[in-house]
Amino acid sequence: MANDTLEGNRHRGIPRQGASPNTLIDAIQGTLADFLAAQIVSLDSIDPALGRFARTARDLVHAGGKRLRPLFAYWGWRGIAGPDAPIEPVLPAFAALELMHTFALVHDDVMDESETRRGRPTAHRIFAGQHELDGSVGDSGRFGSSAAILIGDLCLVWADQLLARADAPPAVRACYDRMRVEAIAGQYLDVLGENQPGAWSVDRALLVARHKTASYTIQRPLQLGLALTGLAQTETEQAYGAYGLAVGEAFQLRDDLLGVYGDPSVTGKPASDDLRTGKPTALLMLARKLATPAQRAELTLDPAGAVNPADGSGGLTHQQVQRRAQIITETGAPARLEAMIQERVADGVAALAQAPIHEEARAALIELAVRVTHRPA
Amino acid sequence: MANDTLEGNRHRGIPRQGASPNTLIDAIQGTLADFLAAQIVSLDSIDPALGRFARTARDLVHAGGKRLRPLFAYWGWRGIAGPDAPIEPVLPAFAALELMHTFALVHDDVMDESETRRGRPTAHRIFAGQHELDGSVGDSGRFGSSAAILIGDLCLVWADQLLARADAPPAVRACYDRMRVEAIAGQYLDVLGENQPGAWSVDRALLVARHKTASYTIQRPLQLGLALTGLAQTETEQAYGAYGLAVGEAFQLRDDLLGVYGDPSVTGKPASDDLRTGKPTALLMLARKLATPAQRAELTLDPAGAVNPADGSGGLTHQQVQRRAQIITETGAPARLEAMIQERVADGVAALAQAPIHEEARAALIELAVRVTHRPA
Repeated sequence: MANDTLEGNRHRGIPRQGASPNTLIDAIQGTLADFLAAQIVSLDSIDPALGRFARTARDLVHAGGKRLRPLFAYWGWRGIAGPDAPIEPVLPAFAALELMHTFALVHDDVMDESETRRGRPTAHRIFAGQHELDGSVGDSGRFGSSAAILIGDLCLVWADQLLARADAPPAVRACYDRMRVEAIAGQYLDVLGENQPGAWSVDRALLVARHKTASYTIQRPLQLGLALTGLAQTETEQAYGAYGLAVGEAFQLRDDLLGVYGDPSVTGKPASDDLRTGKPTALLMLARKLATPAQRAELTLDPAGAVNPADGSGGLTHQQVQRRAQIITETGAPARLEAMIQERVADGVAALAQAPIHEEARAALIELAVRVTHRPA
Repeated sequence: MANDTLEGNRHRGIPRQGASPNTLIDAIQGTLADFLAAQIVSLDSIDPALGRFARTARDLVHAGGKRLRPLFAYWGWRGIAGPDAPIEPVLPAFAALELMHTFALVHDDVMDESETRRGRPTAHRIFAGQHELDGSVGDSGRFGSSAAILIGDLCLVWADQLLARADAPPAVRACYDRMRVEAIAGQYLDVLGENQPGAWSVDRALLVARHKTASYTIQRPLQLGLALTGLAQTETEQAYGAYGLAVGEAFQLRDDLLGVYGDPSVTGKPASDDLRTGKPTALLMLARKLATPAQRAELTLDPAGAVNPADGSGGLTHQQVQRRAQIITETGAPARLEAMIQERVADGVAALAQAPIHEEARAALIELAVRVTHRPA
């Protein structure tokens, strides 16, 4: 790649004009790496145990993921800032979204007691492993959870610190705060749904999708990107809002399908985790609605009360999960969900059609709408 | 009380000149109540379950406590702003510290699996109780922890939002961020200490005290108050730093003593909780250092490995705890800790002696140094 399209500073790959996802992601990685290195030095100087703690946080941030939130924020910003605006002043804000995401994932994994994430052990499992290696006293699982709660807290604070380094008008922080509250509210409803599946419905599952996923993955990152331009653009804000809501819901519906039919070697999560725990996803709610009485009876067996005879763990057995996935297919819910995804992608793309944004951003967001809703993981 | 010393707005008791702790605390309460009421309305409009969630958070914030962090921030500010500066523009920052404190308490209680706080059920116990009342499926304890993690997250974000409403120069946020990272780092070391008591020492216990307690209870709130004035006052910043460190350590040492010898009906926590779990406090570390070989053998029995025969719970039995408290007294450690507290209070007061702050603030901070280190709870 020609070097003359780059900023020519220590962040390799910072695109001045447009961006291929890879150069943008390199720039985000570079910003995160620099920031985290400084935090590690600072914490290590207090106590070496804190250095190790911070390095574990860094590794979790770097463990991958699709960097979707920075990507949407970038295109939200580029849509109005245009292809020539320098990215340097706003790059920390994009990277902050990734730290915020690590916070959300780490706390979610503690709540869900998930063992793996992105194909690697989750934060609380890593700390439980450190506890065992160190020959510490006490319960390693409890230590793991405590340390993971604190890692999440730290990433949330770090995200704030990184955001403060961006050249950001007050509207950026307002958008960021809205996003954070919505993400927490959505996660609470998600947890509540697992504990009150009888009180759940397709509508309520979509409400969770809007707050837990659409808001914080697409809608608010886009609007945050717009706010970074410092320009009040009501029409674009509304277009981004409508696009984010529609594509974000579709993103979650795809997640529901992957949670049942996804390939664990690609998703990095155990197969059918959602079914095992009885999570009232839109997919499951829709299947129950479409089911015959006999099918419905099988689908409403309470997984929380079930005990796996193989290992004594809670939730459904592998066979019960397989059976449930088969019934869900038979109800026609997956096909209906695919149609809902298509509808929403079309709505999202249509919402952008008249928005007064740069063509390059419009094209990129149309491409992203399709890509994130038709992904293998 | 004469009404002419007040701001004469909806916050009853906002002091324009000086403040008795009560009028200041009323103003803080009013600011918190207004802010939380608006958040409840907003979340309730998404889903009634979120309204209930937010009301639970509000009740936890209002459940009392000494409001020490706002108090120190207030006097840190008043010390330079002087008796005539209107408090209205900076009040949200003081109140934000209380929301930040709720975050810390709620997450700490999840990690410590504490049943009570301020004489009431802890957040995770309240949510576990809601789960049971609702007849939800799944494990109520796990639901309680998940909901409490999210309440903590929410309070941390709310604290940020409230801070953003203050008229705050950038130095305020920098101080606030430092405080948050130190509090999280201190809590991690605290958790680590409980799991690695063999690797602990008086020095390391004091390191925890400096980060977990001194920084976030006294030192940074004072400096945040100073930063709110928008004036760079190196001498005062250093004086506040030295005072905060010394008085904050003394505050934690008092906490150690209350944790073993405090009256549960006053502290609101079960007696000798620290001993039961084997927390390597400065008190316990000092007792081990001063102990005879026979005493030391009794003090190093690993509480994490112990199982209470009465109820199967972990940790020491009531009798073992009583015996341990007696041995600690016999080593002379409590008397030595009392002397360390006096030394630190004297150092803190001395640090203020030459600081160029208003006399009223100096007097209030001297009074506070004594009061917070000689408290019954």
